[in-house]
Amino acid sequence: MKKKKIVLSGMRPTDKLHIGHWVGALSNWVSLQNEYSCFFMVADWHALMSEYKDSSRIGKFAFDNVCDWLVYGVDPQKSIIFVQSDVNQHLELFLTLSLITPLGWLFRCPTFKEQMKQLKDKEINTYAFLGYPVLQASDILLYRANYVPVGQDQLPHLELCREIVRRFHTLYKNGVFVEPQPLLTSTSRLLGLDGRKMSKSYDNFISLDEEDRTLERKVLSMFTDPQRQKKADPGHPQNCNVYTYYSVFQPQMKDEVEDWCRNAKRGCVECKKILAGILREFIAPKREKKRGFLKKKDYIYDILREGKAKAEKVASETLQEAKRTMKLL
Amino acid sequence: MKKKKIVLSGMRPTDKLHIGHWVGALSNWVSLQNEYSCFFMVADWHALMSEYKDSSRIGKFAFDNVCDWLVYGVDPQKSIIFVQSDVNQHLELFLTLSLITPLGWLFRCPTFKEQMKQLKDKEINTYAFLGYPVLQASDILLYRANYVPVGQDQLPHLELCREIVRRFHTLYKNGVFVEPQPLLTSTSRLLGLDGRKMSKSYDNFISLDEEDRTLERKVLSMFTDPQRQKKADPGHPQNCNVYTYYSVFQPQMKDEVEDWCRNAKRGCVECKKILAGILREFIAPKREKKRGFLKKKDYIYDILREGKAKAEKVASETLQEAKRTMKLL
Repeated sequence: MKKKKIVLSGMRPTDKLHIGHWVGALSNWVSLQNEYSCFFMVADWHALMSEYKDSSRIGKFAFDNVCDWLVYGVDPQKSIIFVQSDVNQHLELFLTLSLITPLGWLFRCPTFKEQMKQLKDKEINTYAFLGYPVLQASDILLYRANYVPVGQDQLPHLELCREIVRRFHTLYKNGVFVEPQPLLTSTSRLLGLDGRKMSKSYDNFISLDEEDRTLERKVLSMFTDPQRQKKADPGHPQNCNVYTYYSVFQPQMKDEVEDWCRNAKRGCVECKKILAGILREFIAPKREKKRGFLKKKDYIYDILREGKAKAEKVASETLQEAKRTMKLL
Repeated sequence: MKKKKIVLSGMRPTDKLHIGHWVGALSNWVSLQNEYSCFFMVADWHALMSEYKDSSRIGKFAFDNVCDWLVYGVDPQKSIIFVQSDVNQHLELFLTLSLITPLGWLFRCPTFKEQMKQLKDKEINTYAFLGYPVLQASDILLYRANYVPVGQDQLPHLELCREIVRRFHTLYKNGVFVEPQPLLTSTSRLLGLDGRKMSKSYDNFISLDEEDRTLERKVLSMFTDPQRQKKADPGHPQNCNVYTYYSVFQPQMKDEVEDWCRNAKRGCVECKKILAGILREFIAPKREKKRGFLKKKDYIYDILREGKAKAEKVASETLQEAKRTMKLL
């Protein structure tokens, strides 16, 4: 049997997860599990790099996010689920790679400047934040991941990771690490209820454990085609966020919904009520399952403990080999 | 009984130790042990920050330096002797403090610019090296050291450490750490055989386990008062490096040696031969004791293992408290 290729991915536990995370990342994780040997990581150190002022959130959301991963289909029998800060090797490889990473590589990283602008209010002009991609490199390299699912914007980090690998191999004349490749996925991006980026801070999101009552209210508040003022006006589905939601969550209804809209057969309110029902059916069973998990916390802790043990085994082997190569043992 | 104040100090195991290290640091450690509760650390991560290209040296010299510490009087019954990389908490607190340390504080640190110039050939324009003082802060804070023996040039690092403490206490509204104070010592600085800074790279040093034969040769090569050309010329002890060595290693002979020199009673060669004898008596017994240690390596490893356990106990308590304060547990 051919050995499965390795995938590493992580999420920063800075908040509750919403359906945007499902569409953009989590649904992809669930399908990757069948083809790859997957490591799914709660990136709590990475979260702290921007959220250090409000550090109490991290632990809470770490637990909550893992519950969502599980109820939405991440399978601890197939994948290794673990918390970054539980595996000490991340810090040790982080400092090791920091030794050989020129400052210029980090300052020239396009994401660094971009984020400094975007997250101005977070005061992320810190020493730790500059090292964000180096910690990421250590996450990836510890598990010898062949692939990392990334968006276009994260490509520079992966390139930096490969440069660090090459520098290590040149300096110590031995190949220890695997150069990771991006796994560019064609997942669509789901916009928020108001058509902007879906985000907790815009209050335009539907969370992965949204209550039925708030769910309907939220869907009914969605912006639709602005050119369709009255029910009798023909609409433009391609300009309607509600239509996008249909194509993501109930693609087999696309043609039907297009017909409702273009030919003014159903009004926007009715169309949104039907969408609310679809989302309710999608979310409610997972929400209830999660409620069960929250009552038996030990079940979650056991999964994370087991994940830690498995991750640690792989990570410590890689780290030992890196140290042997540097003649540090 | 009043609780002893705590001192932390470390040495970077980048090379063999020489008598300059004894005069400038180690002799001070030996006397500090009686008044303070001391943590003496092999700063191997700090060594790697400049020596990463030649990493194989570090482990070798770590062992060798600890042998010197012991034979010259550092007492494992009184002090905790440990290796930085053996105590994982250093890395965890390092990253924790990195989260809250503004980049500007590090770039403005006078030692950073200075070292970038001095160690040009080492390519220390790396991410790790910029964080040097933050790792140092974590070393100090983990053991709640009240005092750190430092030279004038290291004062900015200690000031930075205190600034980090204050920022932590302000952000998380709780006092966890102790602000360390410098322990400025009046130890003299011993110059090399040629009058320049004593350094392995200038080949102008006498090591702490120098062989008798090379010791005499080295002392005889020392530069003396350049104005005293012939034995009959009166000399100027204050301009003579040999005289400084006397005042450090045999201060009770100072007046006598001054008389030899000023009044041309003894020539420089004779004066140096006598000094060589004094240094031989000082070094030889320790060199032989060290030879014994090198044969029973387990004795050293046991001391370091015990030091690790003791250091870890203190370090993990401090770290737990820091995490509790940040509500990360």
